[in-house]
Amino acid sequence: MPLPDATGAAVYFIGRIRTPWLTRRDCPRRGDPVDGPICAIELDPRWAQGLEGIETHPRLQVLYWMHEARRDLVLQTPRGAGPIGTFALRSPVRPNPIASSVVTLVERIGTTLRVRGLDCLDGTPLIDLKPDRTGTAAQT
Amino acid sequence: MPLPDATGAAVYFIGRIRTPWLTRRDCPRRGDPVDGPICAIELDPRWAQGLEGIETHPRLQVLYWMHEARRDLVLQTPRGAGPIGTFALRSPVRPNPIASSVVTLVERIGTTLRVRGLDCLDGTPLIDLKPDRTGTAAQT
Repeated sequence: MPLPDATGAAVYFIGRIRTPWLTRRDCPRRGDPVDGPICAIELDPRWAQGLEGIETHPRLQVLYWMHEARRDLVLQTPRGAGPIGTFALRSPVRPNPIASSVVTLVERIGTTLRVRGLDCLDGTPLIDLKPDRTGTAAQT
Repeated sequence: MPLPDATGAAVYFIGRIRTPWLTRRDCPRRGDPVDGPICAIELDPRWAQGLEGIETHPRLQVLYWMHEARRDLVLQTPRGAGPIGTFALRSPVRPNPIASSVVTLVERIGTTLRVRGLDCLDGTPLIDLKPDRTGTAAQT
């Protein structure tokens, strides 16, 4: 479908996510905050002070921009099912390709956070970090 | 602090959220998906097909843009505590003022979803809806 002429707001890319997955086919279907591999969230040093106190939160919510995803599909057929509406799916394909994952914080080294629970492409732009409030299993 | 010269991506506002709260002081500190008041998510009819099948998900994750929030603070002093880094807080004030809430779907009427669990200002721009994967308490 045609996308709107106007956008509503602009996001800053505040860092990059480093993972073992170099293509979309390599990415796991859903990150595991307990058993997943350690990945790195590299915050742009400009925002370094924003990490003050982050170690007090063992679980963090990470928002990131799925920069390779199409934005113009409102109906999708995942694994041959459907069609299902984009808002009834967690597919990367959506008008605003923003993903939300819950990760466990393993270690902070300067502006790099080593975490478990991600499932995104290496190089994915970071848009936000905040304490998780769910207290349970993965949300990717 | 000065914000970056360049932004990374643009978001579409895909609808509006209707709540009883007309000023930031009125907003509850945290929405409750069980006991909170019913609020309305009004999706722009352009995206109507994207709701196909959404009723199969009793809990939805809602992403919205906190349009009245400052974006230039990396340290904050919530209720006199701190300073605490922005990424160690769920404050609306952050480089990308995107909130994530989990809501329960009460009813769908066309492109309007009646839900419980929101705590944002009336008129807040909607940026995404997806099935929740946490299975537990509120995440706002």
